[in-house]
Amino acid sequence: MKAKVYVRLKKSIADPQGTAIKGMLNKIGFSKVEDVRIGKLIELDLGDVAKEDAEVQLNEMCKKLLANTVIEDYRFEIEG
Amino acid sequence: MKAKVYVRLKKSIADPQGTAIKGMLNKIGFSKVEDVRIGKLIELDLGDVAKEDAEVQLNEMCKKLLANTVIEDYRFEIEG
Repeated sequence: MKAKVYVRLKKSIADPQGTAIKGMLNKIGFSKVEDVRIGKLIELDLGDVAKEDAEVQLNEMCKKLLANTVIEDYRFEIEG
Repeated sequence: MKAKVYVRLKKSIADPQGTAIKGMLNKIGFSKVEDVRIGKLIELDLGDVAKEDAEVQLNEMCKKLLANTVIEDYRFEIEG
């Protein structure tokens, strides 16, 4: 069972990395770009688990390790 | 116009960060996890551009700045 986890900074949290990339894009010719936010895409191969178990496990993984839920939101997609 | 860009290491490129996270997940109770790969999720507000222009611009942005196409693949989704 494969899954993708998307971890993003909460809207209220400043994203200096995104701001730097926005500034650079503006400078190299993409002057209309208004905002950039950087998040993480985590692809997992969960091995041999049922879909319901995968969902429970992914929530646990995100809360324990993959996301810092104080400043980040996460969502995931289970494939197949 | 908003867009999401997903940047991932090519399959053939080793991902030590993913390997470290896999090892940690295995250690904290998710023993069946077989593989973890870490990528980037970049969310952009492109400002006021037509969809066709957005597509051209995103390809350029990825090639010039957002992805290192020697070792990374990218794809993007344009919203709305």
